[in-house]
Amino acid sequence: MERTLKVLDGKWTTLIVRELLSGPKRFGDLRAAMGSPSAKTLTDRLRALEHQRILTRTVYAEVPPRVVYQLTEEGESLSDVLDAMLRWGEAHPLTED
Amino acid sequence: MERTLKVLDGKWTTLIVRELLSGPKRFGDLRAAMGSPSAKTLTDRLRALEHQRILTRTVYAEVPPRVVYQLTEEGESLSDVLDAMLRWGEAHPLTED
Repeated sequence: MERTLKVLDGKWTTLIVRELLSGPKRFGDLRAAMGSPSAKTLTDRLRALEHQRILTRTVYAEVPPRVVYQLTEEGESLSDVLDAMLRWGEAHPLTED
Repeated sequence: MERTLKVLDGKWTTLIVRELLSGPKRFGDLRAAMGSPSAKTLTDRLRALEHQRILTRTVYAEVPPRVVYQLTEEGESLSDVLDAMLRWGEAHPLTED
């Protein structure tokens, strides 16, 4: 459990994994899909996930260079956790009170 | 998903739910079982979970008064998410590097 808590540390990290589960993405697309966290927040979270071998960062030597983020196998295997979170969230929606 | 992220916001909240899944607990037992977060941190997290109707706080008018925390039905239903987190953590343990 400790590793899971270290990896899925907070809202943004979980949303990054959810977005990348639908395929590799570039920084800008990822940021837009996640409700535009600050560039610094997103950069820090991506770097932490890269360090934990949950995703890879590939730079394509084009002009301008293209940077793509993609889940590793370990990252992909988080889908069970994300699915369980999604199901629970749908069964217990936020109620404004 | 948004609700799930709001509820399972961080390590301590998730550990509280995990501990209470094995039954109602008092503050002191809960704190010890979770690796002794500060009393303030634990109090704040418990209050947040109570506000989100994930657990209840019952005060028994004894001398001294006994305070017991217990998951609600919604709280209990988080077990699927916790199980998925547990399985993933076991399959992908922390490696010191």
